[in-house]
Amino acid sequence: MTGCFLEIMKQNHSRTISLQELARLTEGRLEGDGAVLLTGVASAHDAGPGQLTFLSGTKNYAAYLELLKNSKAAAVIAPEDAPDLSLPSLRLKNPYYGLVKALEFFFPVEKSGYSIHPAAFVSENAEVDPSASVGPNAVVEAGAVIDADSRICAQAYVGKNCRIGRNTLIYPGVRVLDNCVVGNNCIIHANAVIGSDGFGFTPHQGRQLKVPQVGNVLIEDDVEIGACVTVDRGALASTIIGAGTKIDNMVHIAHNVQIGKNCVIVAQVGISGSTILEDEVTLAGQVGTVGHVRIGKGTTVAARGVVTSDVAPGSFVSGFPLKPHSEERKILASMRRLPDLIKKVRELEKLLGGNEKK
Amino acid sequence: MTGCFLEIMKQNHSRTISLQELARLTEGRLEGDGAVLLTGVASAHDAGPGQLTFLSGTKNYAAYLELLKNSKAAAVIAPEDAPDLSLPSLRLKNPYYGLVKALEFFFPVEKSGYSIHPAAFVSENAEVDPSASVGPNAVVEAGAVIDADSRICAQAYVGKNCRIGRNTLIYPGVRVLDNCVVGNNCIIHANAVIGSDGFGFTPHQGRQLKVPQVGNVLIEDDVEIGACVTVDRGALASTIIGAGTKIDNMVHIAHNVQIGKNCVIVAQVGISGSTILEDEVTLAGQVGTVGHVRIGKGTTVAARGVVTSDVAPGSFVSGFPLKPHSEERKILASMRRLPDLIKKVRELEKLLGGNEKK
Amino acid sequence: MTGCFLEIMKQNHSRTISLQELARLTEGRLEGDGAVLLTGVASAHDAGPGQLTFLSGTKNYAAYLELLKNSKAAAVIAPEDAPDLSLPSLRLKNPYYGLVKALEFFFPVEKSGYSIHPAAFVSENAEVDPSASVGPNAVVEAGAVIDADSRICAQAYVGKNCRIGRNTLIYPGVRVLDNCVVGNNCIIHANAVIGSDGFGFTPHQGRQLKVPQVGNVLIEDDVEIGACVTVDRGALASTIIGAGTKIDNMVHIAHNVQIGKNCVIVAQVGISGSTILEDEVTLAGQVGTVGHVRIGKGTTVAARGVVTSDVAPGSFVSGFPLKPHSEERKILASMRRLPDLIKKVRELEKLLGGNEKK
Repeated sequence: MTGCFLEIMKQNHSRTISLQELARLTEGRLEGDGAVLLTGVASAHDAGPGQLTFLSGTKNYAAYLELLKNSKAAAVIAPEDAPDLSLPSLRLKNPYYGLVKALEFFFPVEKSGYSIHPAAFVSENAEVDPSASVGPNAVVEAGAVIDADSRICAQAYVGKNCRIGRNTLIYPGVRVLDNCVVGNNCIIHANAVIGSDGFGFTPHQGRQLKVPQVGNVLIEDDVEIGACVTVDRGALASTIIGAGTKIDNMVHIAHNVQIGKNCVIVAQVGISGSTILEDEVTLAGQVGTVGHVRIGKGTTVAARGVVTSDVAPGSFVSGFPLKPHSEERKILASMRRLPDLIKKVRELEKLLGGNEKK
Repeated sequence: MTGCFLEIMKQNHSRTISLQELARLTEGRLEGDGAVLLTGVASAHDAGPGQLTFLSGTKNYAAYLELLKNSKAAAVIAPEDAPDLSLPSLRLKNPYYGLVKALEFFFPVEKSGYSIHPAAFVSENAEVDPSASVGPNAVVEAGAVIDADSRICAQAYVGKNCRIGRNTLIYPGVRVLDNCVVGNNCIIHANAVIGSDGFGFTPHQGRQLKVPQVGNVLIEDDVEIGACVTVDRGALASTIIGAGTKIDNMVHIAHNVQIGKNCVIVAQVGISGSTILEDEVTLAGQVGTVGHVRIGKGTTVAARGVVTSDVAPGSFVSGFPLKPHSEERKILASMRRLPDLIKKVRELEKLLGGNEKK
Repeated sequence: MTGCFLEIMKQNHSRTISLQELARLTEGRLEGDGAVLLTGVASAHDAGPGQLTFLSGTKNYAAYLELLKNSKAAAVIAPEDAPDLSLPSLRLKNPYYGLVKALEFFFPVEKSGYSIHPAAFVSENAEVDPSASVGPNAVVEAGAVIDADSRICAQAYVGKNCRIGRNTLIYPGVRVLDNCVVGNNCIIHANAVIGSDGFGFTPHQGRQLKVPQVGNVLIEDDVEIGACVTVDRGALASTIIGAGTKIDNMVHIAHNVQIGKNCVIVAQVGISGSTILEDEVTLAGQVGTVGHVRIGKGTTVAARGVVTSDVAPGSFVSGFPLKPHSEERKILASMRRLPDLIKKVRELEKLLGGNEKK
């Protein structure tokens, strides 16, 4: 099977760049032979001749040097302060930045080859920029606007009166439901749902009566949303995802939530209704929040934490209920000693006699 | 971007109603000028002239009064017992009920404008009521029946021999797989899956052998199911969702589960196989259950709880393993004192001397 | 509604087999009248005349015998060592194996009745074996290969250069994105996503810069993947799911994860980037893992556990942080005594006097 993968990947590798040119592109420092021609990127272990490899940090540096000795790679991207390497290298403060630029060079974004695919359904009352594309079996409803260079992939859905900004990529099976707005340079991954109804009911005569959800979702520029994410529309106004925010797979965002700019939300997080995330908040995997709380700017909630009340800006918190991360770690460590502690207290009670009421 | 939202919303606001007429519709009490004409609903902060706003309770009442003073709203829905307000008001025991009625008036359900869309695929052996609609790129397979007034939206799937009741709304990308049954007045949100195979395997010759899953899913009337929910079909019989039950996004319901009437299941809950929920059970966000347990009528499981055994009717439980909620709260509070407790016990041991075996 | 289900199911039951023939097929031992003709399978409670029922073990055996007395079933599959039963029985070491064989007989896999459905879109540069089928509104892109006997159901997506092996079943709404590979005899359930981008960003000039995800997903033979599962493509190489592994609904698998053979991964698990599962690992429901850990062969992680570091082969672990399951259970039991323990220590301190610093 691996052979199969390599064969597929080879098809994509048809461009070459010199290490020197890449150094110029990334404003990095060249060390060794800049004329070496690069044909692709791979790990030190997988790299073939002509390929560029990658060292992200100097942890386990000796082991990496060993790997590199046995690698067929032609050059390496490395941190500025990494010691001498056996290959020509491109030195960067943030080597990931070099990796990004190299990958962008080797895997340029392909245009779709069609504007509106003959097997797409686009309402005559929708407006699709001629530079945008709509894939087979995609549906664009009346009143929707698709801006320049955006791609609505196969089988995606853009509902009535939606606006999709410039250069935005909507993967197969995404549903952007009526009246929702997606900004420029966004990516929405397969089978995500934007604008499902919020979970709003009120008890009436022994039953749950639905509160109509008439708001929408506003996604600002440069947002990425993972596969199978659901973002509910606001009840009366908008659920908002701020510019630059990145959301991993299977995150649930309830109605009226407001997420600030440049937040990072890891997989399987659940954000309850009307919660506010200020800018640059990180929620690690499987975090949950109760509703109507505010999480201050720059806060990180560690994996599996449950946000039960407002969190001050710049916090590093975890646990359920939420505590400073260092305290939570101490408590978790203490728990392993709890069975022993119970025994000790029993012994102390015996020693002191007379105290054994129960 | 907000401007964009307001513009979209304006398009929807073309109906007007007097406060007096709304009072009549909701059987509420009018206070102040009933002749005021209403054109829409918004929060006190967002409301423009002619709009109706909304006060759900008297918590933070002074702050709300302040908000209302600066609001451009024309009238307000308020609890019966709320003190005097600066605007004409509609008084109701449950103000949410008034909100529902107002929203239903301002946002009436639109008919789809077609019966079977030309870009839909409907088997000639399916039966679609002439008052029902099937959207572009939806698929309805042989033997399926779609009843009066139901809407199968774009790109939805209704499998072989499925039955969809009256006035039910199936959003884009929903998959109702072969032999499943959905009742009347249901709503199934985008990309939900009804009738995926249960997770059933038996070890055989060192491998996991699939147990065919030949049951189905029965969804009774007035059920709402969130986006990206999965409901597995029964192994031999039916997985059942009782009438009036409401299910939030990304809930997983395993095979053979039986959910009673008027249950409320919040986002990201996982219900294991053959679990029984009696009527009016509430599972809060991210709850899990082990298989083959019964949760008694009217029970509430608080967020993140794990149901590890049967739960008596009327319980309020939380934690893992599950405990009475008040006990769980006490334990969680105690945990913060655990590191300190360990120190204290060590000191007591020193004081008592001779006891330091370890 | 139940009547409706029974009616639907009856349509499927048109084949008959004698108990004796089934005993031959399963290499089981016949007890009682082998000539009895069977028309279907149901629980002892639901079974009608002519139906086969099923006893998986001898726990609650007396209750089962009682059920059986009132059952209309014609025969029963039972464990080899179960005592005498009131009905003709098929005895097997693993009675589930008999159930599988009976269900496979009564519910044979139906061929789709078409090769490429007229409402499908298949690129002229894709290769679909004549024995394979592609359903209505499915899309198969250029360079994709669909092997013999595989079924790409309605509205499924197979991206550019994908390979789908022999006899594999891709349910409605599944997205297999560009360059991904699926083996033979696999089942991928509705709305699952194979090959979404990994969650990879690097901070650059105050923003999160996307690291292009140029790897793919390799799914080996005999793998089953649940509804709404997401498997991210590798960053540079492949995310791998080993042969025979079974994955339940709504599991998230991040980029570069390597899952071994015959693993079992229960619903709503989240596996972080670059995690390695060796063969035969079981992750129970709602488990999470941090990234870059290795879980040894044959390990079981109990429900809701969080894998925070490497786990030795053959472990049985649970909790957060992860501990041996027996230790975790002891700790959880001890926690209920914590509030009482705090009181006791306070009393001991009083008894010892002078010690009350705080």
